[in-house]
Amino acid sequence: MISPAAQIGKNVSIGENVVIEDGVKIGDNVIIGHNVVIKKDTVIENEVHIHDLTTLGRYPGTNKKMARKPSLTLSPLIIQTGAVIGSNCVVYRGVHISEGVFIGDLASIRENVRIGRDSIVGRNAIVENKTTVGERVTIQTGSYVTADMIIEDDVFIGPCFSSSNDKYMGMGNYAHAGPVIKKGAKIGNNATLLPSIIIGEGAIVGAGAVVTKNVAAKDIVVGNPSKPLSKNTKTSAD
Amino acid sequence: MISPAAQIGKNVSIGENVVIEDGVKIGDNVIIGHNVVIKKDTVIENEVHIHDLTTLGRYPGTNKKMARKPSLTLSPLIIQTGAVIGSNCVVYRGVHISEGVFIGDLASIRENVRIGRDSIVGRNAIVENKTTVGERVTIQTGSYVTADMIIEDDVFIGPCFSSSNDKYMGMGNYAHAGPVIKKGAKIGNNATLLPSIIIGEGAIVGAGAVVTKNVAAKDIVVGNPSKPLSKNTKTSAD
Amino acid sequence: MISPAAQIGKNVSIGENVVIEDGVKIGDNVIIGHNVVIKKDTVIENEVHIHDLTTLGRYPGTNKKMARKPSLTLSPLIIQTGAVIGSNCVVYRGVHISEGVFIGDLASIRENVRIGRDSIVGRNAIVENKTTVGERVTIQTGSYVTADMIIEDDVFIGPCFSSSNDKYMGMGNYAHAGPVIKKGAKIGNNATLLPSIIIGEGAIVGAGAVVTKNVAAKDIVVGNPSKPLSKNTKTSAD
Repeated sequence: MISPAAQIGKNVSIGENVVIEDGVKIGDNVIIGHNVVIKKDTVIENEVHIHDLTTLGRYPGTNKKMARKPSLTLSPLIIQTGAVIGSNCVVYRGVHISEGVFIGDLASIRENVRIGRDSIVGRNAIVENKTTVGERVTIQTGSYVTADMIIEDDVFIGPCFSSSNDKYMGMGNYAHAGPVIKKGAKIGNNATLLPSIIIGEGAIVGAGAVVTKNVAAKDIVVGNPSKPLSKNTKTSAD
Repeated sequence: MISPAAQIGKNVSIGENVVIEDGVKIGDNVIIGHNVVIKKDTVIENEVHIHDLTTLGRYPGTNKKMARKPSLTLSPLIIQTGAVIGSNCVVYRGVHISEGVFIGDLASIRENVRIGRDSIVGRNAIVENKTTVGERVTIQTGSYVTADMIIEDDVFIGPCFSSSNDKYMGMGNYAHAGPVIKKGAKIGNNATLLPSIIIGEGAIVGAGAVVTKNVAAKDIVVGNPSKPLSKNTKTSAD
Repeated sequence: MISPAAQIGKNVSIGENVVIEDGVKIGDNVIIGHNVVIKKDTVIENEVHIHDLTTLGRYPGTNKKMARKPSLTLSPLIIQTGAVIGSNCVVYRGVHISEGVFIGDLASIRENVRIGRDSIVGRNAIVENKTTVGERVTIQTGSYVTADMIIEDDVFIGPCFSSSNDKYMGMGNYAHAGPVIKKGAKIGNNATLLPSIIIGEGAIVGAGAVVTKNVAAKDIVVGNPSKPLSKNTKTSAD
């Protein structure tokens, strides 16, 4: 079902069983797979490729226990020129996906998130709300990027990374703060960052490290809890 | 395709390309998204919201190597009043989802599981079979709740939690036992619990901890393997 | 929409809103769920079961930042007799799924992968490209199997396993090398393997271990970084 109130550009390929709701705008040379759902007001620019069985522009839900208010004022989802969205993804309203971004299959991205130019969000990766991802960032497969987090340009995050933003673990009403990963830092696979940790510019966090304190620029940390590598020690990250 | 043998209540909104099989019962004021599949006999009470591209009431499968017998006697999936099920979820037959429960996108819940009132199962989280989840529990995004596990009321589990129930790792026929997490305990992100571990009432497991022994009520443990924090030490969990 | 250029065997059950593209070949006694997408040239042998909302035969995508070239020469996806594919899965072109394999819901398998007979890939598990999985292997739920990895016969991998193949974390053009897990080795839940690590035949890696060096045949390692257990110590893996 393609809403007659949707605007569709030139040379757009649309698969079978696709739903395009009211107010959707689609540019030229866009490819949309089968069984895709594009919700109200979503904006898709030129040369975008949406794979099968993906939902775009979903509104946040809520239940009694969750603090969050329904965000009725979210701006539409925008997917800029040349971006690719994988199969079976869920991307919310209020997300800005910049030019050339690549989103892997089964990934999901919550509201109030901006993904910068040419960044990659791996398959099965999750980006929570109110998080900013810079340009040319790689977030590998299965990584969990918590809410209220800042990832600067050229950061590399290995697979299965985990972060959190709630140091009192659900105790109530107070400000949540996710980690900040500064420009060019690299995080190894299955590393864990505690809430509000700052990873300095160009720092390296080893695979499996559990980071409980800030890491200075260019430092290399490993272990649980993570500690700086001695400067004389050769490491697998050298 | 909506089976003529399904019962649909008043003021039900059903999206495009939805499949509702025989024997399904849907209450009043229910919202069902696009491309949803609702399998045989599923019961959905009033004011439930099912998001797009979700499968409800799936039967377990099996192969030659898997011990499990097909569970032909599973009771239907029941989703009680006011529950919300996200996009691209897979919920099995034999599951009981209580009032006010919130299930995130891309989550999956296996057969013979009960989720108590007002609990949250985060996006991409997985709950295995024969597990019981209490009331007002939070299981955050990407967590893995193994089979044969008990999670009591008011437990908080951070993102990317991992558990297991098979201490001989696939060696054969013997009883599997998942961990037990007692009332009000809190588990940090990316923590790992070994099979049959008991986490005491109100205990706290730090982020990234690998728990190889039982944790007493109100104790705080961190590290790999996890050890109690000294009582004089301030921690990020205090 | 079922392409008239597809070949469909005897006694095939096809759900609602299914898309079967040109050149697909389906054997006898196959069951295909609702809202399934089967892309060009996919070969499905006899007695295969495909659950709902799954994509089969997807082509790899790419963006500017990714090194990979589009693989226009990939052979079709082949799913051999008696295999089961779960709900909401994404399986690529260029994959060979052998007889009796079981793929859980929400799993995804990239191109140039072979899964051996009677192996299990758990729900939400991910297998990257150019990886080989032997026979009778178990890869449990939520595990991440990186690219360029070799998993030999009878290996057991617990839930939430993580691996990587890129020891310079995105620094540029050089050979990537995933771990090798030799015959019959067992890996505990949420263990982390660094790139190109070799796990010897019959070795055991404890839950939550971070493996930074090769593990000899039959050795047992635990901790972060992992170290061999002393031979006099009783362990949960004994």
